[in-house]
Amino acid sequence: MNNPGKEEITEWLQSLQDRICRGLEEFDGVGKFHEDKWERPGGGGGRSRVITDGKVIAKGGVNFSAVHGETPEALSSFLGRKDSTEFFATGVSIVLHSVNPWVPIIHMNVRYFEVDDDTWWFGGGIDLTPHYIIPSVAAEFHKKLKAACDRFDPDYYPEFKKWADDYFYIPHRHETRGVGGVFFDRLGPSGKKTKQELFDFLKAVGETFLSAYIDAAKEGMNKEYSEKELSWQRIRRGRYVEFNLVYDRGTRFGLETSGRIESILMSLPPLAEWQYNYQPEKESLEYQTLTKLKKDINWIDEL
Amino acid sequence: MNNPGKEEITEWLQSLQDRICRGLEEFDGVGKFHEDKWERPGGGGGRSRVITDGKVIAKGGVNFSAVHGETPEALSSFLGRKDSTEFFATGVSIVLHSVNPWVPIIHMNVRYFEVDDDTWWFGGGIDLTPHYIIPSVAAEFHKKLKAACDRFDPDYYPEFKKWADDYFYIPHRHETRGVGGVFFDRLGPSGKKTKQELFDFLKAVGETFLSAYIDAAKEGMNKEYSEKELSWQRIRRGRYVEFNLVYDRGTRFGLETSGRIESILMSLPPLAEWQYNYQPEKESLEYQTLTKLKKDINWIDEL
Repeated sequence: MNNPGKEEITEWLQSLQDRICRGLEEFDGVGKFHEDKWERPGGGGGRSRVITDGKVIAKGGVNFSAVHGETPEALSSFLGRKDSTEFFATGVSIVLHSVNPWVPIIHMNVRYFEVDDDTWWFGGGIDLTPHYIIPSVAAEFHKKLKAACDRFDPDYYPEFKKWADDYFYIPHRHETRGVGGVFFDRLGPSGKKTKQELFDFLKAVGETFLSAYIDAAKEGMNKEYSEKELSWQRIRRGRYVEFNLVYDRGTRFGLETSGRIESILMSLPPLAEWQYNYQPEKESLEYQTLTKLKKDINWIDEL
Repeated sequence: MNNPGKEEITEWLQSLQDRICRGLEEFDGVGKFHEDKWERPGGGGGRSRVITDGKVIAKGGVNFSAVHGETPEALSSFLGRKDSTEFFATGVSIVLHSVNPWVPIIHMNVRYFEVDDDTWWFGGGIDLTPHYIIPSVAAEFHKKLKAACDRFDPDYYPEFKKWADDYFYIPHRHETRGVGGVFFDRLGPSGKKTKQELFDFLKAVGETFLSAYIDAAKEGMNKEYSEKELSWQRIRRGRYVEFNLVYDRGTRFGLETSGRIESILMSLPPLAEWQYNYQPEKESLEYQTLTKLKKDINWIDEL
């Protein structure tokens, strides 16, 4: 079997973007994706696809990019490789913000990196950020991710679930961003898997996205809500903004390397709210959600 | 004349907070400040005062703090002093978000720092972030700041105006945050001024705040507005969030040193909006504002 090269990986990522956009349009029923093609001055470009004012999705982006060229200074130091000259990076990034506060925000990224022809790796993950945590939805979501991981390595799910808990954490709030998921990076030649196996794993993660989202969204999309739930949704979206602008490595790297700003910040919500020192009432649904924004919750066995 | 010590400076800052809060309540007529006193585990504390749902001010904070203790690791490296053991920092920080989109956001910070008894400096500034730029208001605002500066040094205004332009800049948007103002830091013993002179300058800046704000707010507070202007206000507030979370040194320093989070993030607006790739119509008022979010505009002589 041949090692998958960057053309094959790039093509698969583009087709994944196509299939996810089609699937989301079908599921939403109202919202349509609008595409912006863009080029990167130093080499490569992307297809940003944004959906707004859908029935389920208020604002979402499904972005593909494949960029290459001289390694920018910020990238070399990011990688700890001062000698790097050429890089190639391709990936699909998704963030979907929902209309109904009972439908979670979802995020996925699957990516492939090469530097100087001698080094390559895959990275990515999927994670869920409910405004209101429904434990059965979180469990179902984690079960799907675990099933995708288990096909490749029994260590993957526990390891990558922990990685997501650690990564999607907001230290200044002492909260996780949501119920986590899986996160992995630098899956490269140093491990025990072949490049084909790692690519197959990336594919499995990417292909899990659509059904994981639809199942998580279905549960809440027809629930009733009022201004109270909408305000809480905006407050939680404010936390999403805090995480993405302060901690998210992809966002900060994009800002520092002058990536296409509208594609990088498509992850930000349509509306966000900050109330000074907001504390939900004890035992309210909002309060219960806060008690579950912790690392190391075993969602699958929790029920 | 005695050199002002930290007790004298701290007392003046507290009285400044009192006077500004009283003045703002009087001006607003509806909103009242709510005070939270807090203590810092390592030493010192503060008085956070927040006003919400006023007639003019939608959400604002006027915070005083005076903290001291062992120099935290993050502070030493921030200062480039690995050997530092003791620090003292006191200041007043203000951000006011407005109800009416024609009333600008304003920010002030006046602060005093000491490390290891041998080093001290003053820093601070005032800057204005209109949602809609009215050149006459920007000119009046800058004239007031210039007058305060000119009493001490003819070089202060040009130097500190440029510093504000450079500091309150959002590189990823290629925009200044607003129409700037003055910004200065590390005014210490290395310059030509005595400590008393520098303290008097800090006082002059602090005492300028109230009338500068009231004059800037008066102009727009009775203007009519509709959802169109409110949406633009939320979009501009989104930029304010981007600046504060990505670039503002005070905010990032606060987050990294586990300051009191609700006091640090009181600067964030009540509501913010992000639309994908929003571009105002050519020649609209929104568009005209964007053309003026540039460095090096001489607001005073512009008219």
